[in-house]
Formats: sequence, structure tokens, C-alpha cells
Amino acid sequence: MKGIVLLGHGARNPEWAAPFVRIRDAILKRQPAACVEMGFLELMRPTLDEAIDILVNRGIRQIVIVPIFMAAGVHIKKDLPLLAAAAMERHAQLNISLAEPVGEVPEVIGAMADYALVQ
Amino acid sequence: MKGIVLLGHGARNPEWAAPFVRIRDAILKRQPAACVEMGFLELMRPTLDEAIDILVNRGIRQIVIVPIFMAAGVHIKKDLPLLAAAAMERHAQLNISLAEPVGEVPEVIGAMADYALVQ
Repeated sequence: MKGIVLLGHGARNPEWAAPFVRIRDAILKRQPAACVEMGFLELMRPTLDEAIDILVNRGIRQIVIVPIFMAAGVHIKKDLPLLAAAAMERHAQLNISLAEPVGEVPEVIGAMADYALVQ
Repeated sequence: MKGIVLLGHGARNPEWAAPFVRIRDAILKRQPAACVEMGFLELMRPTLDEAIDILVNRGIRQIVIVPIFMAAGVHIKKDLPLLAAAAMERHAQLNISLAEPVGEVPEVIGAMADYALVQ
């Protein structure tokens, strides 16, 4: 089974993680057997590395990292490929793929547009 | 007619604004007469104030600000109410309401979950 890491920037305020919990819960509601973890780049835990290690320890050998970012800034374009490469060095049998950030996904954009129009 | 401001944080890289353009376009596709502007807190223009002024100059007296943020951090909880209050002081007949950030919206969360599951 493929594992999913929901990648967030992280923030000082613990409440900031709430949407990530909701996305994880929505995934588990759709696929109760899904292997999904949150991982953060800064200020919050689990870190991306910790999230990957959790999945690997469960026997996962294929992980997709889904950036829960509006747009691909420097974190996504420069830092993330390096972090993914380092994790694959650390876990010889692990393959990691990188999804586009959710803010680039037409269905997500459409849901935001629908929401804005009913406010 | 109610005006919509899509509020973003802003970033140095101009590409970062692309999702905001896509959300605006998706809104205009759904409602071609919608009055919708992007406004940024930092590093990008138009600023939130500029976006509000554009709408007011078009005769809009009711604006909803929709934070295109995953979660309500300090910008949304502390800065945004002050900026909205200052804009209403500046424009005596203007009413501004603040929507929840898109990352708190179940349909947006669901679209992200659907996306993650097909990666």
C-alpha cells in the first residue's frame, strides 16, 4: 500500500494543525485502511522525516508527499526534493513521489470558488 | 452587489499568485458579473487596502474578505480584523465581513482528501 504524507509548513500555534487533522480524517473516512500521516517543515511535529519514518516502520515502501500549500514556493520547489532524496538515502527500499500542491488542483480551486460565492 | 476579496499572504516570487488568479477565474466562470479582487498582506500587490479601494471605486458597499489560507494564524486572527476596521473608517458607507479561511471549509478539505487519495 502507498503511504500519504500531508505536508504542512508548521506554525507556533498548535491550532494551526487543525485543517491537517481534518484532511487526514476525511481521507480515513473515504479509505479507512489508508496510511496517512501529517509532516511539518518547521515549528511543528511530527517533522516530515518523522512522518516518513512512521510509515516506513509500518512496512510502507512507496510514499507520496502531498503539499498542503496554496502555491509552490521555495519550500516546495527547493527544500522538498532535497528532503525527499535524503529520506530515500536513509531508507534504501523506499520510493517517494511528490504531488503538486493542493492549491494547484482544479477541484480544490473550484471548491474555494464555490465557497467564496456563498459568503 | 457584494464584492469579494481573495486574501493571500503574498510572497517574493510572482508565480506564487497563480492560484489566486485561478480562484478568481473560477469565480468569474461561475458568475461572470461577480466583483472579485485579490489582495495581499505582504510582498505582493494589490495590497488588501488597494483591493478594497478598487471595489469601492466600482460602487461596492458590501465586501466579504475570503482568506485563502489553510488555517487562521496570527495574520487572520489579529491583523485582518484591524485592517478591515481601518478600511471601514476610511470608507464611511462600506461594510466588510470576514469569511473563515478556506482551509476550514469541509468541501475544500474534502477536495484535498480526494486529491491525496488518487496520487
